[in-house]
Amino acid sequence: MKIAIMGFGVVGSGVGEIIKNNAESIAEKVSESVEIKYILDLRDFPDSEFKCFTKDFNDILNDDEVKLVVEVMGGTNPAYTFTKQLLSAKKHVVTSNKELVAKHGTELLEIAKANSVNYMFEASVGGGIPIIRPLINCLAGNEINNIKGILNGTTNYILTQMISCGKSFDEALKGAQENGYAEKDPTADVEGHDTCRKTAILASLAFGKEVDSEKIQTEGITKITLSDVALANKLGYSIKLIGLCEKAENGVYAEVCPMLIPKDNMLSGIDDVFNGIMVNGSFVGDVMFYGRGAGMLPTASAVVGDIIDIVRHKDKNVGIMWTKAEEGYLLDNAERKNSYFVRISSNDEISGEFIVKKIANDTEIGLITSEMTETKLKDMLKEKGVNALSIIKLVK
Amino acid sequence: MKIAIMGFGVVGSGVGEIIKNNAESIAEKVSESVEIKYILDLRDFPDSEFKCFTKDFNDILNDDEVKLVVEVMGGTNPAYTFTKQLLSAKKHVVTSNKELVAKHGTELLEIAKANSVNYMFEASVGGGIPIIRPLINCLAGNEINNIKGILNGTTNYILTQMISCGKSFDEALKGAQENGYAEKDPTADVEGHDTCRKTAILASLAFGKEVDSEKIQTEGITKITLSDVALANKLGYSIKLIGLCEKAENGVYAEVCPMLIPKDNMLSGIDDVFNGIMVNGSFVGDVMFYGRGAGMLPTASAVVGDIIDIVRHKDKNVGIMWTKAEEGYLLDNAERKNSYFVRISSNDEISGEFIVKKIANDTEIGLITSEMTETKLKDMLKEKGVNALSIIKLVK
Repeated sequence: MKIAIMGFGVVGSGVGEIIKNNAESIAEKVSESVEIKYILDLRDFPDSEFKCFTKDFNDILNDDEVKLVVEVMGGTNPAYTFTKQLLSAKKHVVTSNKELVAKHGTELLEIAKANSVNYMFEASVGGGIPIIRPLINCLAGNEINNIKGILNGTTNYILTQMISCGKSFDEALKGAQENGYAEKDPTADVEGHDTCRKTAILASLAFGKEVDSEKIQTEGITKITLSDVALANKLGYSIKLIGLCEKAENGVYAEVCPMLIPKDNMLSGIDDVFNGIMVNGSFVGDVMFYGRGAGMLPTASAVVGDIIDIVRHKDKNVGIMWTKAEEGYLLDNAERKNSYFVRISSNDEISGEFIVKKIANDTEIGLITSEMTETKLKDMLKEKGVNALSIIKLVK
Repeated sequence: MKIAIMGFGVVGSGVGEIIKNNAESIAEKVSESVEIKYILDLRDFPDSEFKCFTKDFNDILNDDEVKLVVEVMGGTNPAYTFTKQLLSAKKHVVTSNKELVAKHGTELLEIAKANSVNYMFEASVGGGIPIIRPLINCLAGNEINNIKGILNGTTNYILTQMISCGKSFDEALKGAQENGYAEKDPTADVEGHDTCRKTAILASLAFGKEVDSEKIQTEGITKITLSDVALANKLGYSIKLIGLCEKAENGVYAEVCPMLIPKDNMLSGIDDVFNGIMVNGSFVGDVMFYGRGAGMLPTASAVVGDIIDIVRHKDKNVGIMWTKAEEGYLLDNAERKNSYFVRISSNDEISGEFIVKKIANDTEIGLITSEMTETKLKDMLKEKGVNALSIIKLVK
């Protein structure tokens, strides 16, 4: 099978490397050789071992020999237009582009189905961790109740540094940048946008209807302080950035925010740049998928896994699908009850039956509350004249 | 699609329940209804909601309408003969029968392939945890280096009780039996046979050639004492029963034995009846799959996942396969170097560069050694006149 790669950045060059260096073992697995015919990139790579670069997308689109295209350009433009044209031309597309899948997945999956080809994106969530296919195949005997994921390695590294080494957010971020775990502009990671897109993809897949990433309530980790981390730790919790989705009677909840995870929950032990995705199925209960959620070769290996799967099923659409959702399908988190961690000054006096657990250091107090809506909690604190320095949800 | 269930025990009745109660959502997923036409069992179930029982296997074999059979009888006889006949009659077979897959998988997969049907066994390892399909599909872009698994819930529950509650092996086993986590005759679990079969299946799948479960060196947990657990804990390790397989230059290593797991390894946090399977791929590094490894509904949900997958691909063999191995393919563990935990009496004096870490309680000493073969370790201890009370390998 002849394929093309669009975008020769980190993931694209990883895909090239794996396919080139493992041609034999891949051919053995699918009884067919997989050969890279074009690599599309506007840049020049005179020193590359590959000699099949092009700057013209039409070379790929119009070549009937190319049956599968790897889109690892990132961003929505021109990736969106290109992908539409490729699928319409009955070429399979494999991508790691979570932004595009989150934004235009519904339409692209539909076009793929109409043309009996596949649009696959295992690499878009959790890097090399198998999650998309297990969710739709292996767990198909279950109804999915909820998914809770540590989906972003950068923020998890920063939080781990804060928890284990007592570094402040700014120090930890700087360290992450120095180690290549965070970009110069870390906004997409630390503000939760990356986690949000992955959450949208998981929610859409798990529950069968589109969850629009732009409508998911999203909070990053920039406001988390060392005090939060230390008091939470004393109370028996780790703080992690969680992408959450949950089926309810009339729709789904989805949210991205820092959450307190009890130490006996497997998610609390996921440190550094590792990701973990906990899926709750109606019959299987909790299952978790763990591994490196990013990086050139882990992500590229997931792309290659999709390529191999398509070579095995090249004549049909394998049925990865979700549809448009009705108005109001994504429910309002304000109506959802939760327990909370609340940090207040030692000068504030507080008592009441809603306090489940309480711990203090020299200057501050950390509380765990009973379950209620966030509005009710805030009203109650206001009534008591207490100024909350932090309010962080507990994972259920 | 009309299907049959052979064996109406724990898993079989779970499969029946899921298919009956979720008929609509299953039909939606595969655009086709799945209907149980026969249930084969020698016992009578007059109170069952199912009215399609038969005691005659030929009813199923000779009914052309039945395209898929769920074999959850357990044991190798008559499951082996029945499965062969069904596959030869071009009926797909889904099973949770690890004993049969471990013993006759090579032949049954070959018959399935020759007849363009599928023999699937996701439920045979890790109950409801997705592992078989992720291993052969999602991770197909990797060469698998090794797999280390906590594959048996009963023994993990017993070890957790020993570690967390200070119960002796016998007390913990009794508790497990009272809670329904261990059978009256716990031999297959506590002696490691169950873990051994699952290890054979994983090793055969991951490396493509049959690893005979009867040739895998297997040691259970019956010799583990509270002293081992306590000293290991002080040294920073948990003791877990591990099924291990690893690719080497000229073949594979496979082994089942209790091992010391460092506290920062995710496997050490897997407690109670939960299972965890850590797979190391050439590009993705370590990925782990975690969840309930047994139980009626978790296991049944994995069987139903396989059924759904087959309905989606009913006209072809999807290529789950391994072949016979050459003589000597399974390598001798005696040649493999390891670090060890050694427990000795405080009366024994011991020193030497091979001791990496050492800790003592009132009457005994726990050591961690450098890497060497087990033969070398035993020779050395003999030379020094030291009597080892326990020798337990460290996980790499």
